[in-house]
Amino acid sequence: MIKIYGKNCVYEAIRANAKLIMVSVLDTYQKKDFKFIQMLEDKKISYEILSKDKMDKKYGFNHQGYGALREDYMLCDDSIIDSLPSFGARILILDGISDPHNLGAILRSVDAFGIDLVVLPKNRSCNINETVAHVSTGAIEHTKIMIVNSLNSFVVNLKKRGYWICGTDAKGDVLASEIDKTLNLAIIIGSEGFGMSKTLVKESDYLISIPMVGHVNSLNASVSTAIVLHDLMNKSK
Amino acid sequence: MIKIYGKNCVYEAIRANAKLIMVSVLDTYQKKDFKFIQMLEDKKISYEILSKDKMDKKYGFNHQGYGALREDYMLCDDSIIDSLPSFGARILILDGISDPHNLGAILRSVDAFGIDLVVLPKNRSCNINETVAHVSTGAIEHTKIMIVNSLNSFVVNLKKRGYWICGTDAKGDVLASEIDKTLNLAIIIGSEGFGMSKTLVKESDYLISIPMVGHVNSLNASVSTAIVLHDLMNKSK
Repeated sequence: MIKIYGKNCVYEAIRANAKLIMVSVLDTYQKKDFKFIQMLEDKKISYEILSKDKMDKKYGFNHQGYGALREDYMLCDDSIIDSLPSFGARILILDGISDPHNLGAILRSVDAFGIDLVVLPKNRSCNINETVAHVSTGAIEHTKIMIVNSLNSFVVNLKKRGYWICGTDAKGDVLASEIDKTLNLAIIIGSEGFGMSKTLVKESDYLISIPMVGHVNSLNASVSTAIVLHDLMNKSK
Repeated sequence: MIKIYGKNCVYEAIRANAKLIMVSVLDTYQKKDFKFIQMLEDKKISYEILSKDKMDKKYGFNHQGYGALREDYMLCDDSIIDSLPSFGARILILDGISDPHNLGAILRSVDAFGIDLVVLPKNRSCNINETVAHVSTGAIEHTKIMIVNSLNSFVVNLKKRGYWICGTDAKGDVLASEIDKTLNLAIIIGSEGFGMSKTLVKESDYLISIPMVGHVNSLNASVSTAIVLHDLMNKSK
C-alpha cells in the first residue's frame, strides 16, 4: 500500500481506476470542490473528511487538501515487450537514478512524450515511493514500469528484438533530433553523479549528447531526460 | 549577504571571483580536498574549518561539506541591453515563477543554453535566495539577472529595439525549432499555475508550444523552459 497526496496525484489515480482503499479530503474543500466529492460517490470510492491537522499528520504538508491510500503500483513483466508498438516504440532505461524528485519529474515527461515503458534496475535505483508519485503529479498512473535484475541482459535482449540502443553521454556524437523516429528505440539515461555504466555505453548503437555552452556545463538529470525524450518523440502516436 | 552551500555552488562562486566574506569547509574535508584549501589560500580567501554539527547548524543539511557567506548577487540595470550581442541575443523573461527550486533549475539551463540575460518582475516572483543558488549548482554566478517594475513596458521597449517576442503557451502554434536562430529573441515563460499574463500574450510575435501526448499533459516549468531554450539555442555562440 502507498500513500499518495496532492490534487493531481489523487485525481489521476481515480481517472486511471486505481484501487483506492480510502480517499481523504480536507474539510474546507468538502463544499468548495463539490465535483470531486460527487465523483467519489459516483465511483463508490470510500472517503473521509479530515481537519487540516489530521491531513498534515497523515500526508505531510504538501497534500493540497487531497490524499489517498492506494494499492501498490502494478509492475510489468517480460511479456509487456510483446505488446509494444511494432514501429516507433520507445523504452526508457534509467541506469541508476537515485533521487525520487528526479524520478518523479522524469515520469511526468515520460507521459508527456509518449514513452511506452520505463525500465529500472533492481539495485542502484530509487524506489517507487510517495515522493516519486507526488512529483510525477499523477503521471505515474499512466506509466508502464518494469524492474529487471540486470539492465545489461535486458539491453542485449532488446537488441535481438531489433531495438536501437540510444545511450546518452556528454561525449556523445549524435543529436537526438538526427535519429530516425520510426525506429524502435531504447533510450538509456545514466545516474545523476556517474552517468551510464561502461558496459551499457558499449552496447549503445547511438551515443546522444545535448549541445551546451556555458560554465557549469551540466543539466539536471530530469531536464536532460526531458530534452532527449522531446527530441525523440514519435509524433505519429 | 547570502549564505551559499554545496560543492558546486561554492566552487563556482570562487571561479567567478565573487566576493566571499568567509568560506566554511567540513573538518573531514580539510585533508581529503587539499586542492580546495590550496585554492582558498592562493586566492587569499578567508576560511574556517567546521565540525559536521556546526556546518549543519550554519548551512542546513545539504552543504556537502562546503559553505560560504557571499555578498549579495549584483543585479543588472537597463544599460545591460546595449551590451548584448547585436545578432542572436537571447533574453529570458520569467513572468511569475514562484518556486525557488524551479528558478534555480531554470538558471542552470540558462547557463547551459547561452542565455544573455534573465529578467524577473519586481512583484510576483520568487526572490533570489539561497535555495535558488543551491539548485542552480553555481550557474547563478555566471548569469546576468535584471529585475524590472513592469514586464510589459520592458517587453514593449525590447520590441522597439528589434527583439522578437516569443511567448510560450499550450495553445501556441509555433515550434521553437522553427524560429530563425539568428534573430534577437526574448522568450517569455509563464508562472507555474497560471501561465503567461494576457497582456504579454498579446505582445508576442510567436506563441511557442511543446508538442505533447499523454494523459497529464503538462510539464514542470523548469523542464518546459529547458526544452524551449535548447530548441532556440544560438549554436554560433
